[in-house]
Parts: sequence; structure tokens; C-alpha cells
Amino acid sequence: MPTSSLRPFDPERDLVLQRVIPVPLAKVWEAWTTPEQLKQWFCPLPWKVVACEVDLRPGGVFGTTMRGPAGEEHASEGCYLEIVPHKRLVWTDGLGPGFRPAEKAFMTGILELEAQGSSTLYTATVLHANSEIRQQHEAMGFHQGWGAALDQLVAMIQA
Amino acid sequence: MPTSSLRPFDPERDLVLQRVIPVPLAKVWEAWTTPEQLKQWFCPLPWKVVACEVDLRPGGVFGTTMRGPAGEEHASEGCYLEIVPHKRLVWTDGLGPGFRPAEKAFMTGILELEAQGSSTLYTATVLHANSEIRQQHEAMGFHQGWGAALDQLVAMIQA
Repeated sequence: MPTSSLRPFDPERDLVLQRVIPVPLAKVWEAWTTPEQLKQWFCPLPWKVVACEVDLRPGGVFGTTMRGPAGEEHASEGCYLEIVPHKRLVWTDGLGPGFRPAEKAFMTGILELEAQGSSTLYTATVLHANSEIRQQHEAMGFHQGWGAALDQLVAMIQA
Repeated sequence: MPTSSLRPFDPERDLVLQRVIPVPLAKVWEAWTTPEQLKQWFCPLPWKVVACEVDLRPGGVFGTTMRGPAGEEHASEGCYLEIVPHKRLVWTDGLGPGFRPAEKAFMTGILELEAQGSSTLYTATVLHANSEIRQQHEAMGFHQGWGAALDQLVAMIQA
């Protein structure tokens, strides 16, 4: 049973981006799980991912370092929680590699993919501890940011 | 590859209780994964576990409510991260059911079992975010508390 069955979507605490994108599912999975590809699309321009670590197993590291236009850097390190190839990817920054608790948790991300012919139904759900953190994430530009990154992902695959 | 291979034991941030106990491995696994049994041993007397929820899958709830001698109650809710029957059980309070980030993380627990004839090599490792939280947990009586609970587990199986 997928963990999505554990608790339903909670509009008070979760954010979701759902879209049908005109690229094949296998390519989307690859874009999400290959460091060289993540570097190309994961962060909306003008920010760029300059380093990326992927150890695709539960407890394995998912780390990115983003660099801004003025050279400022922001590193984040979390771990994967659930990997169902071509279907479902779950990761969090609430635990680091080896499942060690992080100093501070912000979110758990759930990517779900479903083939629709040669297109893909793409659902990214983000879970937060409470509605305040959800609102903070929304105000930081969740929809615009994750949407722009998704545009970059599609453009990369279509190039 | 077990996640224990991801990061070695860190004496600055981790705590460990290791002991060979004179009871068979299968009974120890059962004691750790059955609510009715957890209620009997998990909390050192005079505190008692009065409610216990176990959903043994990654992201599934592990919740306990403890009641003290004066009737005071302490509830905690986390989730399982990795389940390798009869070998390895990993859970955390840094994420709640469905992997939702918790308001506050204290620890990730790793139980590892290895048969030694009719006895069991029992290793409980607890990971913390930093050395301050590790020290706090040690000062709370980690070794005495987890040791007393383990004595209760052995006594329950031998009864």
C-alpha cells in the first residue's frame, strides 16, 4: 500500500502542484533522479544548482547547493524516504543521511507520476508540520517557483 | 545495502545500548512490533504505556502514550522508516505518520537483532541532530531507562 494512503491531502498544511506535461514519464523520472539533469532544471533561473548529491535508497542523501546571481550559495541536505521507480519519490529535509534528525525541518516532498499516453500527470505534494510553515512556503513563491522549475524540466527533455 | 552502512556510528551525537539477552530473536522482534506486548515492557516502571499504535510500514505510525504514577500523561507520535523483519527496525519522532515533518525532532531509533544460538545480540542505537541533544538524552537517563525497559522485555518473554 503506498504511503499516500496513510493520510489524505491536508489543505491546511500541504501544498500541491499538479499538471499534465507533454513529455514521457521515464524521462521525468530520470530528470528527478540524475544529478547532472537536476542541475539543469531544479532551481528557477537566475539561481542555479551547482552541486547535487543523489543516493537513491531510503536514508540516502538528497543534497543540493544553489548559487544566486550575486554568487551567494544556499545548501540543503535531506534524505530519501520512499522510492518506487517511475511512480513515486518521497524525500525530506527533516532527516539527514542515514535518517539522522535535522536541526530544523521544513518539508517532506512527494512526487507522483502517472502516464497519460506520451504525456505525464505530474503531482508534487509538499507536507509541512503546520499551517504557518505552509503559508510561509506559499509566500516564498511555492507555486511560481516549482512551476518555473517544472517548465525548465520540460524544456530540458524537449531540447 | 542496510542504511547502517550509510553513516558510521558517531560517538559525538549517538547513544547505543548493546547487550546479549537470553531470549530468542523472534520473540524480541514480536515484543517490539506488537502493541499489546509493547505496553508491557516499553516504559520503565512506575510509568506505563497505556496506549500504543503500530502501523508497521515505512511512514506508518508508531505512537505511545505513557502514564506516570501521579496520572500525568506523555504522548509521542512518530513513524517507521525501515522494517527488515527479525533484523532491523528504524523509526523517528522527526516525522509523523505519512512522513509529515514534526514540530520538533528529538531522535531516530535503530534496533538491530542478531541470533546467537538461543540468545540475541541486541543493539539499540539512537541518533540525534547534535551533541547537545545527545547529552540531554544521556542526562535524562538513557542508559538506565532503556536498560530497565530491556530487563522488562526479557522478563516478559521469560514469564
